[in-house]
Amino acid sequence: MSQHTYRLIVSCPDRVGIVAAVSGFLSRHGGWIIEASQHADQGLGWFFMRYEIRADSLPFDDKGLREAFAPIAEDFGMQWQVTDAQVPKRVVVMVSRLDHCLTDLLYRWRSQEMFFDIPCVISNHEDMRDYVEWHGIPFHHVPVDRNDKAPAFAEVTRLVEACEADAVVLARYMQILPPDMCARYAGRIINIHHSFLPSFVGAKPYHKAFQRGVKLIGATSHYVTEELDAGPIIEQDVIRVRHDDSIEELIRLGRDVEKAVLARGLRYHLEDRVLVHGNKTVVFD
Amino acid sequence: MSQHTYRLIVSCPDRVGIVAAVSGFLSRHGGWIIEASQHADQGLGWFFMRYEIRADSLPFDDKGLREAFAPIAEDFGMQWQVTDAQVPKRVVVMVSRLDHCLTDLLYRWRSQEMFFDIPCVISNHEDMRDYVEWHGIPFHHVPVDRNDKAPAFAEVTRLVEACEADAVVLARYMQILPPDMCARYAGRIINIHHSFLPSFVGAKPYHKAFQRGVKLIGATSHYVTEELDAGPIIEQDVIRVRHDDSIEELIRLGRDVEKAVLARGLRYHLEDRVLVHGNKTVVFD
Amino acid sequence: MSQHTYRLIVSCPDRVGIVAAVSGFLSRHGGWIIEASQHADQGLGWFFMRYEIRADSLPFDDKGLREAFAPIAEDFGMQWQVTDAQVPKRVVVMVSRLDHCLTDLLYRWRSQEMFFDIPCVISNHEDMRDYVEWHGIPFHHVPVDRNDKAPAFAEVTRLVEACEADAVVLARYMQILPPDMCARYAGRIINIHHSFLPSFVGAKPYHKAFQRGVKLIGATSHYVTEELDAGPIIEQDVIRVRHDDSIEELIRLGRDVEKAVLARGLRYHLEDRVLVHGNKTVVFD
Amino acid sequence: MSQHTYRLIVSCPDRVGIVAAVSGFLSRHGGWIIEASQHADQGLGWFFMRYEIRADSLPFDDKGLREAFAPIAEDFGMQWQVTDAQVPKRVVVMVSRLDHCLTDLLYRWRSQEMFFDIPCVISNHEDMRDYVEWHGIPFHHVPVDRNDKAPAFAEVTRLVEACEADAVVLARYMQILPPDMCARYAGRIINIHHSFLPSFVGAKPYHKAFQRGVKLIGATSHYVTEELDAGPIIEQDVIRVRHDDSIEELIRLGRDVEKAVLARGLRYHLEDRVLVHGNKTVVFD
Repeated sequence: MSQHTYRLIVSCPDRVGIVAAVSGFLSRHGGWIIEASQHADQGLGWFFMRYEIRADSLPFDDKGLREAFAPIAEDFGMQWQVTDAQVPKRVVVMVSRLDHCLTDLLYRWRSQEMFFDIPCVISNHEDMRDYVEWHGIPFHHVPVDRNDKAPAFAEVTRLVEACEADAVVLARYMQILPPDMCARYAGRIINIHHSFLPSFVGAKPYHKAFQRGVKLIGATSHYVTEELDAGPIIEQDVIRVRHDDSIEELIRLGRDVEKAVLARGLRYHLEDRVLVHGNKTVVFD
Repeated sequence: MSQHTYRLIVSCPDRVGIVAAVSGFLSRHGGWIIEASQHADQGLGWFFMRYEIRADSLPFDDKGLREAFAPIAEDFGMQWQVTDAQVPKRVVVMVSRLDHCLTDLLYRWRSQEMFFDIPCVISNHEDMRDYVEWHGIPFHHVPVDRNDKAPAFAEVTRLVEACEADAVVLARYMQILPPDMCARYAGRIINIHHSFLPSFVGAKPYHKAFQRGVKLIGATSHYVTEELDAGPIIEQDVIRVRHDDSIEELIRLGRDVEKAVLARGLRYHLEDRVLVHGNKTVVFD
Repeated sequence: MSQHTYRLIVSCPDRVGIVAAVSGFLSRHGGWIIEASQHADQGLGWFFMRYEIRADSLPFDDKGLREAFAPIAEDFGMQWQVTDAQVPKRVVVMVSRLDHCLTDLLYRWRSQEMFFDIPCVISNHEDMRDYVEWHGIPFHHVPVDRNDKAPAFAEVTRLVEACEADAVVLARYMQILPPDMCARYAGRIINIHHSFLPSFVGAKPYHKAFQRGVKLIGATSHYVTEELDAGPIIEQDVIRVRHDDSIEELIRLGRDVEKAVLARGLRYHLEDRVLVHGNKTVVFD
Repeated sequence: MSQHTYRLIVSCPDRVGIVAAVSGFLSRHGGWIIEASQHADQGLGWFFMRYEIRADSLPFDDKGLREAFAPIAEDFGMQWQVTDAQVPKRVVVMVSRLDHCLTDLLYRWRSQEMFFDIPCVISNHEDMRDYVEWHGIPFHHVPVDRNDKAPAFAEVTRLVEACEADAVVLARYMQILPPDMCARYAGRIINIHHSFLPSFVGAKPYHKAFQRGVKLIGATSHYVTEELDAGPIIEQDVIRVRHDDSIEELIRLGRDVEKAVLARGLRYHLEDRVLVHGNKTVVFD
């Protein structure tokens, strides 16, 4: 918990010697690895790695670690980053009227179960202002004009930039983001979709599930891309339903799955456990 | 287990007095209800009911029960049937080369975990002949000519008729049945599809699941209708997969889900627990 | 949802004619049954029943229904009750410092996902006062002197009586109630225990689970009886853990299970779906 | 699947440089790591590691790999082994009259879903002879005299030795092994217990579960130690049950969990994914 660590995240073409190079580098500097995850995708010929290293075992800080590691990264053609686990990510939460995911995230934030900052909450409705502000978090109401959405998303973008957010969570925001925003924050916007994707893309998935007569309903947290509900999946889960569950009960049962799946997905993201490759994710859970 | 029961299965337009009429009828004849399930679908205005009644508590056999109950059924406009739980249903199993579902069903049959007869197994390959015949079950090899499938399905239909089957199970049969066969045995052909429908309809669902990067894979047992993988769903389940699971591993993990979902679906069918209404099922599990 | 209903809950020795008598009675008065659940326990020879009836279909209110039904109840030796689904149960929530279950219940109450009143929250610590009072709910701090607990529980009892509570929820209260309180509110105090009972009774179950090296951890909601963690179980669930999960992580993962299991157990109780018989429950979920 | 690999399994006191030493060694010899798992238990100060290495990337065979690696193992005080994934483990299966686990394992063996040899099946009953021998596997009937069990276990031990077994699976064998046998094959006898341990140790766990009124039942695969049902747990799972499930139905539902949990546990063992430390396991699944 309180142990100070750096995280080294790497992906590169697979070949012999990557682990040896990275772990040898760390070992030479006394780096104590407390958690190590690797994955070699043989089909893609691609290698993924996440190391968590005790900060107090290294002779430099994260900036020094980056400088020292850069030549190795160069050698192997790595995409890589070093993060400091003690620096909380800044996550803007966007919400519409449905507040279960927001409430759940606020609790996990407030109780320090999950480690992140919420510089602000943005909503197209006023409903959640009081609850959010009780937490001491700024609340911005940005209404969306259905005939001209551009100004609203310009304002959202301005707010996200102004608070120097690392990530945006769409906690049942119910509005489709414009392509330029998806592109600008690629791999940094997490959505919760209230179905087990790829089933029931788009609006009203619980109604569609009810019509189809499925025996399980689900939820999916994924990175947002331009194509609706088609981005890289981070986490999914399901819950059993029965013939006597109405649409209202599907919606009720689904809420608990949505909360859990969004929270787990965000946790993985905050802890740098998600590596995106193409349209898929490696999740070192 | 060994208790002799009749099952009374009813569905009709919902209104006041159905339960009273049916249970009053049974009570007048001393009928001891050991299991009762009802469902009123308020959206459809339709009522569903399944009673399991001790045979030794009634003054007549199943034929007598049918005759005595017919006037009530008439009054309420019921679709209904009475079945004798001691009469095993006759289930033809059709299989291709993948034998896990067949093997699983044979064990559940042999061990009497599930109560049914298997008059024969039909396959488009010879592979399973020895194993099936070891069980004392006739095995019919009916090859399917990909350029002219009609003769094969004519032969399959002839075999199904000849053995007076009550139901047909497609235990990974891998061939699409012709529309006339689907229509002829509506509500009596059960298929296991190796995905969580409606995701990944059609061929190679594990490959599609792998491509999409889903975090759970599943299986669905459903009644076969003319439209591929679109019939009423009886049962579904899923299993968690990870980024390091190859397609081969998805196929392996999926097998256990397929076996379980097919066996549960068939059990519900054998015990007259599934009531089809439109394209959905009520399952009194 | 908004439909006004009465619930008729019955248990009695099993015999022929119970369903006929009850449904016949309702039918004579035009009673429209929208949900019906029955269970005949053949081992015990005991019958359990729950009917949900449209209020607008009956010619009397709940008091009238009770009067009209009483003779039938008498005939069959029934334990029974009629409840009005529109009258919220009054539930006192007791909590210690761990606030995840309380927060979860407050959300489900506030969002009207679950239908009940919270006349007050009682805690042996001050920590949750602000959050509770933000909801407009009275908060009572009743410290427990570990050398003389009787005064505290006398005060708790006084508060519970004063607010005319129907039920008490121990939402991780962390104090053992005295036997007289358990007896006084038998079948009306619900506890959440943070293990899959009967494993790990008593204190520090996550530590015990960690020591034993189990691969799943769980939670149990149950009615409180004098014997610790031994009362009738209402609901249970589990979550998978791994060798690399520390005790802290078990505690974190367990919280979500506790919340879900307590909420589901309380929901069943609020909707009169739980019938206690001996030390077991029938749950008409 | 068909790729030839060696597995290097290591555990030792944790310190800086272990991964660097092992991966550096492999890298110097061109070793291509296709799967790597590590775990540092900070509480115990112990490190666990499993590498799967392409055989064709190394300049020596498994014997050569052992010789070359020995000095490193010496330096770090490692417990270690190298196994050849192409050499199937030899697993004796012991069974009583309940045949569901045996049948399941035979299918997974026959279909090559799991990679191992079954040199023989040993049973205290004759029931399964035909089915086992149909598979071409020797069947030994070793009756157990309840007044003098020693001769039976002497014979069992003789048979296990004679076929040079690597492991023994108790697939619902229903007899308690004598302490000397537990000691002799420590970490090599896998039992399936039909409860979610530590709940319901010993005989008739389903009856105990029914009496307690639990809402989930489970199964546990574990290494056998002298203390009954107390050895290191490899795998567990559960299934939901309801108030209307009789003991017979618990037994039926439990069978599927037992099969799955034993098969997964054995698979982990066969693939050298289980590292025992004290009374707990690290499972690199």
